[in-house]
Amino acid sequence: MTVDRNEAAVRATLDEVRAEGRQALTAPEARRVCDAYGITTPAEGLATTAAEAASLAEEIGGPVVCKIVSPQILHKTEAGGVLVGVEGAAAAREAFETIVANATHYDSSATITGVQVQRLLAGGQEVIIGATTDPTFGKVMVFGLGGVLVEVLKDVTFRLAPLQRAEARAMVEDIEAAEVLRGARGADPVDLDALAEMVRTVSELVTDFPEISEIDLNPVFATAGGASAADVRILVETGEVTRPVRHPREEILRVMDRMMNPRSVAVIGASAEEGKIGNSVLKNLINGGYAGEIYPINPKADDILGRKAYPSITDVPGEVDVAVFAVPAKFVPDTLEACGRKGVPAAVLIPSGFAETGNVELQNTVVEIARRNGVRLLGPNIYGYYYTPRNLCATFCTPYDVRGGVALTSQSGGIGMAILGFSRTTKMGVSAIVGLGNKSDVDEDDLLTYFEQDENTQCVAMHLEDLKDGRAFVDAAKRMTKKKPVVVLKAGRTAMGARAAGSHTGALAGDDKVYDDVLRQAGVVRAPGLHEMLEYARGLPILPTPQGENVVIITGAGGSGVLLSDACVDNGLSLMDIPPDLDESFRRFIPPFGAAGNPIDITGGEPPSTYEATIRLGLEDPRIHALILGYWHTIVTPPMVFAELTARVVGEARAQGVDKPVVASLAGDTEVEKACEYLFDHRIVAYPYTTERPVAVLGAKYRWARSAGLLGR
Amino acid sequence: MTVDRNEAAVRATLDEVRAEGRQALTAPEARRVCDAYGITTPAEGLATTAAEAASLAEEIGGPVVCKIVSPQILHKTEAGGVLVGVEGAAAAREAFETIVANATHYDSSATITGVQVQRLLAGGQEVIIGATTDPTFGKVMVFGLGGVLVEVLKDVTFRLAPLQRAEARAMVEDIEAAEVLRGARGADPVDLDALAEMVRTVSELVTDFPEISEIDLNPVFATAGGASAADVRILVETGEVTRPVRHPREEILRVMDRMMNPRSVAVIGASAEEGKIGNSVLKNLINGGYAGEIYPINPKADDILGRKAYPSITDVPGEVDVAVFAVPAKFVPDTLEACGRKGVPAAVLIPSGFAETGNVELQNTVVEIARRNGVRLLGPNIYGYYYTPRNLCATFCTPYDVRGGVALTSQSGGIGMAILGFSRTTKMGVSAIVGLGNKSDVDEDDLLTYFEQDENTQCVAMHLEDLKDGRAFVDAAKRMTKKKPVVVLKAGRTAMGARAAGSHTGALAGDDKVYDDVLRQAGVVRAPGLHEMLEYARGLPILPTPQGENVVIITGAGGSGVLLSDACVDNGLSLMDIPPDLDESFRRFIPPFGAAGNPIDITGGEPPSTYEATIRLGLEDPRIHALILGYWHTIVTPPMVFAELTARVVGEARAQGVDKPVVASLAGDTEVEKACEYLFDHRIVAYPYTTERPVAVLGAKYRWARSAGLLGR
Repeated sequence: MTVDRNEAAVRATLDEVRAEGRQALTAPEARRVCDAYGITTPAEGLATTAAEAASLAEEIGGPVVCKIVSPQILHKTEAGGVLVGVEGAAAAREAFETIVANATHYDSSATITGVQVQRLLAGGQEVIIGATTDPTFGKVMVFGLGGVLVEVLKDVTFRLAPLQRAEARAMVEDIEAAEVLRGARGADPVDLDALAEMVRTVSELVTDFPEISEIDLNPVFATAGGASAADVRILVETGEVTRPVRHPREEILRVMDRMMNPRSVAVIGASAEEGKIGNSVLKNLINGGYAGEIYPINPKADDILGRKAYPSITDVPGEVDVAVFAVPAKFVPDTLEACGRKGVPAAVLIPSGFAETGNVELQNTVVEIARRNGVRLLGPNIYGYYYTPRNLCATFCTPYDVRGGVALTSQSGGIGMAILGFSRTTKMGVSAIVGLGNKSDVDEDDLLTYFEQDENTQCVAMHLEDLKDGRAFVDAAKRMTKKKPVVVLKAGRTAMGARAAGSHTGALAGDDKVYDDVLRQAGVVRAPGLHEMLEYARGLPILPTPQGENVVIITGAGGSGVLLSDACVDNGLSLMDIPPDLDESFRRFIPPFGAAGNPIDITGGEPPSTYEATIRLGLEDPRIHALILGYWHTIVTPPMVFAELTARVVGEARAQGVDKPVVASLAGDTEVEKACEYLFDHRIVAYPYTTERPVAVLGAKYRWARSAGLLGR
Repeated sequence: MTVDRNEAAVRATLDEVRAEGRQALTAPEARRVCDAYGITTPAEGLATTAAEAASLAEEIGGPVVCKIVSPQILHKTEAGGVLVGVEGAAAAREAFETIVANATHYDSSATITGVQVQRLLAGGQEVIIGATTDPTFGKVMVFGLGGVLVEVLKDVTFRLAPLQRAEARAMVEDIEAAEVLRGARGADPVDLDALAEMVRTVSELVTDFPEISEIDLNPVFATAGGASAADVRILVETGEVTRPVRHPREEILRVMDRMMNPRSVAVIGASAEEGKIGNSVLKNLINGGYAGEIYPINPKADDILGRKAYPSITDVPGEVDVAVFAVPAKFVPDTLEACGRKGVPAAVLIPSGFAETGNVELQNTVVEIARRNGVRLLGPNIYGYYYTPRNLCATFCTPYDVRGGVALTSQSGGIGMAILGFSRTTKMGVSAIVGLGNKSDVDEDDLLTYFEQDENTQCVAMHLEDLKDGRAFVDAAKRMTKKKPVVVLKAGRTAMGARAAGSHTGALAGDDKVYDDVLRQAGVVRAPGLHEMLEYARGLPILPTPQGENVVIITGAGGSGVLLSDACVDNGLSLMDIPPDLDESFRRFIPPFGAAGNPIDITGGEPPSTYEATIRLGLEDPRIHALILGYWHTIVTPPMVFAELTARVVGEARAQGVDKPVVASLAGDTEVEKACEYLFDHRIVAYPYTTERPVAVLGAKYRWARSAGLLGR
């Protein structure tokens, strides 16, 4: 189905443009590129005289558009360089004269190549298809409806190039106003496959020719019969592009494994003095229960906290897997050289005083030393890291020992402290907490690569402010999210501001929406804020993966039922349309004035047996895939009674191999707090005083499960 | 500026339509109504023959639109009854024949009145202006851009009719795509005043003639020179409209005052038996510390819990202000009659078993008895109510005694229990908690009327599922929000579904957006969920009102600073552009690698003095109006040290008359939780492990302050 492509023609055109030191292709040049890749454009020609314009207009037939062609004039309309609906030879002749006069008036120094005479496309829907070069993600595709309205409403969607056919098709249907393309209010639907094919082709064009920095097909006229790009703008990169350093997967895994499961850890700058970072780190390693060798490194001590100390890392008798640096920044280079000589694979740089304080040079020096010596670096400017399966607390913060399925990472130390405090207060089960700080070397994709295959980790939650290499992150995330959820809190999402850009596509891309769409494309669950990230991290690993979209609400309070339903819609969950037989079954357990349907309102004041019977039915019926419970505190069914019966019924179902996600909202006096803790301990996500949060966590699990293809809808 | 209006012409037209039993006006009739109110429509005429069509087209000149006129044909396009761009006599003649043929084919029984020949409006921007009759709010105006795209994107805005000039002007600029009207990308701006004037006129038309159930001006062509309604559809109500019962303000205040500050309370169905509702209520009144007379009513006891009991309320010697009903539903009517005889002004109906269980008849009986006897009813189907300034716990739930500035109400008992639990666990200062249940009589507007003038209440937070009388609510809320914030959690916002409607306006109005816009119009702060309602309730009364829009972030953690900035944008807060002299002043206190600007990043590891100096400067400089603090837990400045210094500095400023809102996000280990409690106790809104929540509460305070006109921007 793919058209033969004339790559040589594109290469020749681009080379010519770059040889002339130009950034922008002229319209005929852009047309040539489109032709070479089979991107449909309307019949047209270049007129260099009024007479040529007249004969072109006659040849094309019907109304035409005349546009100035000049390398210097990028904003043709502004220059009075566009006339629409020119019909017939005489009109075309006149249009030519007018346009050239306008253009000359607009910029007297502009070279006038001629006037492009093009068939006027009308009817159908105007859309924009484009590609830009994002500093983080490289080639990014954009799609949206054309016209001033959507420019204002910014209804566009982004994807990394290149795109497969199915991805391109999904992309054109991902805009808010997709209904317009499918034929809203009786209009003909446009040919979505043709649009998708054009998107795919452009995505391959910019991948094949990375020197194309931006391409803008705007407008593309989409009709029931196909798609045609009425105007094409192409910009090329004049400089060279550098690629970030990438390590092979096996290499990443080898080092990360030694970092997370070290046989020995050296603490450089270990100290006996209370309050020093080198003291805290050593104490935490020891008190945390780390079972490997611990080597304090300090030239002025023989023994620190009962462990033999060594003057330098090179003096350590055995192998060292991890060297934790607790020395001032200025001492890092020499000590790192020593680590290189010793063959230490991983250095954890706690000290600050590098790029974050403006000392970029020192950081570059350290990175160069590390690279030369084959040492991978965590940090600098971090609190360290925890890996609970090894009782490893390589940090100056207090130890943390509640093991569980989530690995958390943060770029900021403050956020790391919030992770620690939240974990402790909620007793969140954690596999790892890792500070990334300046990310001079090890970053999110290294960690994802490790956690993907780490059997102690079921879910990853990451706070990040930027990505060093967006492509590498997406690749790692895509692999991981096939198996385990990845939650990302992307900070700085609203502060990116507008970027100066040479095209619509470029301007549209200067926006957080690129991150949003690309993270979604990678299957990542984006958390809207810090608290949500923490709650998703706490809840996702304990919730089983739902097997389908049918969500049922069972509630003792009608008021909660309404709010829980609202939350379902907000979180993209589908309230199951209860079939009559199932409705009948539920009705048997609830008072006559209760409401079956969905939410199932068992009414307030019911005894434990009503909760129990309805929850059991919800678990047993295979058509139901997830339960949301609304509890109302009464004397008849006190909070702990509800919690215990729910945990028991869910536990019994699990024992029979039925493991559905169950979340609960508890409305009541303060005893509900303890009941929620009990439920969490029994793998039921439960919150007091909120109807939104349990549903948001379930919604996050669903978002992941859908993108991982586990729901099969 | 207002055009003379011919109300008689409208009256005559509407009467004629109703006399014929029609719901829809024909196009010429609608035109007559528009003319009478000075609503501009394009030149047009009605042709009953092809020859008339031809001469009309010539008379109007230029291209015209021809449209079928038939009382039976509402969807003209569908019937093939519209031809656009007809030019000249011959074409008009042909168009007439075609349209009549199409219409006859579409509905052979339709009466063909003729063909409307109308000047073709082109250029400018198509908008829709309409009014509908909302079951809750009555006449509601709608405004949006026209065209299929906006129908898909639903970019419309609603307001209660009638509108003042300024409100109408604000309304047309309230849509997302307002930039289009203001002239996006070089287009001419449209005449916004003309549009606003048309909105205002329509709002007065439907107010003057309430029998107009829907009116649809769609499209209206808006240009730089004015606005003209190309198509007008008007529907009339054939039945009569009943108005809800309203009590005069003085009357409401008189009864509500006796309910909240009763000199005596009778408990009907008081019981000595543990576990009975009549026992809990009596105990709570006594244990809660209520100082007025308490009269247990029970025919089978002389004394209950040490209080003299009476067989009937009529036996009570003194006056009774409030009768709390703790008897089964079936006993309510007789007992209520007795209350009437006794002259009790307020009855609190705890029992369920009324409309909520389908027993509408019993509820109607009770309401009738109450109305006849001049007794106001709270409930039925409620937990009762609290009013802490009187130590009044007239409820079967446990007592609550933390006094403070917020009054909370809930329509659902479950939500009421969540309010109670949340209040207790956060020690939220509360003036009242009121259950509204079935709202058979007393509802939100009665309570707003009371709390507006209640000096013990600084803020109201309401959970509601519906409004009995949206107009009365808006009136009461508008008065209250001028002085004190009102927070509303409107449940059921996503489940309203589409209403069957005869016009675009009607269809658009079947949406939660009506509530959203109308609540905003009333100055209400809408909470997105239960938890937010509770947090706003807790925070708003303790935060002082900001004096301007300049918000400054001071943070010890750069990472928190970025997230706090995100949250500011999300919550519509403006980060102050720090002037150079102020920037210089901040820089004096922070390390050279710290970042001034805004956020002010004092960097991690700073001693208490740095926090103190920068916070003091933020409070002292009159150009700054609100502070957001980001704290990072370190050994150098532990959480309680930060909390104490912050409370002290803020307290010192207050002592000097400077009271600015200060909110804080604390990132750290679990000690930050205690620090947050301490800060809350000192009127600083502070949360651990979240950057969003403190900013959301500040944002809610700002939303209220702006709508109350207290910011003066």
